Amino acid sequence: MTDGRVQPPSTLLGPGDDAAVVAAPDGRVVASTDVLVEGVHFRLDWSTPEQVGRKSVAVNLADVVAMGAVPTAVLVGLACPPGTPVAVAEGLMAGMWEEARLAGAGVVGGDMVTAKELVISVTALGHLDGLDPVTRSGARQGDLLAYCGRLGWAAAGLAVLGRGFRSPVAVVGAQRVPEPPYAAGAQAARAGATSMIDISDGLLADLGHVAEASGVGLDVRSKSLEVHQRLLDVASALGADPLHWMLTGGEDHALAATFPGAEAVPEGWTVIGSVVAGPGVTVDGRPYEGAAGWEHWRRD
Amino acid sequence: MTDGRVQPPSTLLGPGDDAAVVAAPDGRVVASTDVLVEGVHFRLDWSTPEQVGRKSVAVNLADVVAMGAVPTAVLVGLACPPGTPVAVAEGLMAGMWEEARLAGAGVVGGDMVTAKELVISVTALGHLDGLDPVTRSGARQGDLLAYCGRLGWAAAGLAVLGRGFRSPVAVVGAQRVPEPPYAAGAQAARAGATSMIDISDGLLADLGHVAEASGVGLDVRSKSLEVHQRLLDVASALGADPLHWMLTGGEDHALAATFPGAEAVPEGWTVIGSVVAGPGVTVDGRPYEGAAGWEHWRRD
Repeated sequence: MTDGRVQPPSTLLGPGDDAAVVAAPDGRVVASTDVLVEGVHFRLDWSTPEQVGRKSVAVNLADVVAMGAVPTAVLVGLACPPGTPVAVAEGLMAGMWEEARLAGAGVVGGDMVTAKELVISVTALGHLDGLDPVTRSGARQGDLLAYCGRLGWAAAGLAVLGRGFRSPVAVVGAQRVPEPPYAAGAQAARAGATSMIDISDGLLADLGHVAEASGVGLDVRSKSLEVHQRLLDVASALGADPLHWMLTGGEDHALAATFPGAEAVPEGWTVIGSVVAGPGVTVDGRPYEGAAGWEHWRRD
Repeated sequence: MTDGRVQPPSTLLGPGDDAAVVAAPDGRVVASTDVLVEGVHFRLDWSTPEQVGRKSVAVNLADVVAMGAVPTAVLVGLACPPGTPVAVAEGLMAGMWEEARLAGAGVVGGDMVTAKELVISVTALGHLDGLDPVTRSGARQGDLLAYCGRLGWAAAGLAVLGRGFRSPVAVVGAQRVPEPPYAAGAQAARAGATSMIDISDGLLADLGHVAEASGVGLDVRSKSLEVHQRLLDVASALGADPLHWMLTGGEDHALAATFPGAEAVPEGWTVIGSVVAGPGVTVDGRPYEGAAGWEHWRRD
């Protein structure tokens, strides 16, 4: 699985022995595992094997990055039906290598077995560069809330694919392969982020985990969520609400973090709200009521 | 998944956030992933969920230990059919925790998803305590070959189960839950082992990997393989050859290693041969010809 692929310097011993050895320069390793199942987390009629491979690695690396870590390695467990074409398995692996490379990580180990359906389990590793991990529990009242990455693009892509279309490519591509901001996690940690999370289930849903873990509330200012023209176009064509996608759409794997003040918010991050007394997550000071509620609010 | 379970000191941040943080005291982490599928790697009509959980962790930790590492943590990806009883999932997790505990490791992360069949992916982590990893490629002509752990027990158990019996418990239990010698890997590394491997597929098969990676031959002295009375009894009852089980039976997860001399072989390890010019693996200087060949040889 390593032919022609180059390991980064953090791979001290790559695949081929009983186990790999990966650098953990400050004496700690950050680790996370996610499992993706065909038909649940991806569809091979919607995505190429390469895209599925990229996605499976991206969603795992995003978890490591959300602790403030620098990605170092991924390990892959692949369960394939007996009739899986070799090209599919090779495409999956090629996509995994490519996505790991984008994040500066290596594919250091794997196991392939036969099963009834395609199941991909990825473990991602990273290092903290001497800093404390940025957990979900450190948000303090008065902190600013910011995000980095994309919001709503994968949801827009899902809406497009769900209606049988294959374009526009930009949003469909975002659904097939998320683009987590790999460098932004460590950037936020260095800047003094007080809490951070990977947006996998939707901005409001994942902010709910931060609010709960930190014992605070989070208020999103809707006006600060700038809707990209592309999302406006797609939403207009489908009769959908693009802000709803940004607030509730999952699978983009942006990062949301809280910072102790405006001067701490790094370049590339957008302030979208603040930490309040709580509990819970609000939009413009009120509970978000979904698309209908949103429509109502927009007419105010 | 952590209720009432205690993390070891190496777990710096346990489950519940985007990722866990695990100690890697010498700046390196050893990592390995294995996937187990129901009906292929385990059977829930032969084993309890607890036993399957223990086995899935044991086979992974054995890979980490075979590098000379001290186990620190496991991460678990679990794909379960929708109708899986809660008790089965709880039993699996209880077994995983128990086996990790036996090895001194914690269960630091996991992901549970729905799938058509039960697929368990485990990633095991460990640290090297400042020593070089012991790979498959360091065996040198003249080294002694030794093993630690059990050989042939799981194969005997499989033979018993395959004929519909449930006893003797000792060998059936060995099939259900291997007992890798968790401390013996680091022990061998400290003693100066030149190569090491986890015996998962059978002694001769796995020694073949060492011979190939090291560019040497390995000769097993059959007389040094002491057959336990329990294996003799089972073999006698089934009309099988216990030495064949020891030479070719998999799933016991003993360790085999080479040492530069008799004085280097640690307590608890049994010398069973030596490193020769090669190539390949021989038994008493000759290629092993399976059960038939073995019978022939035994009549010499």
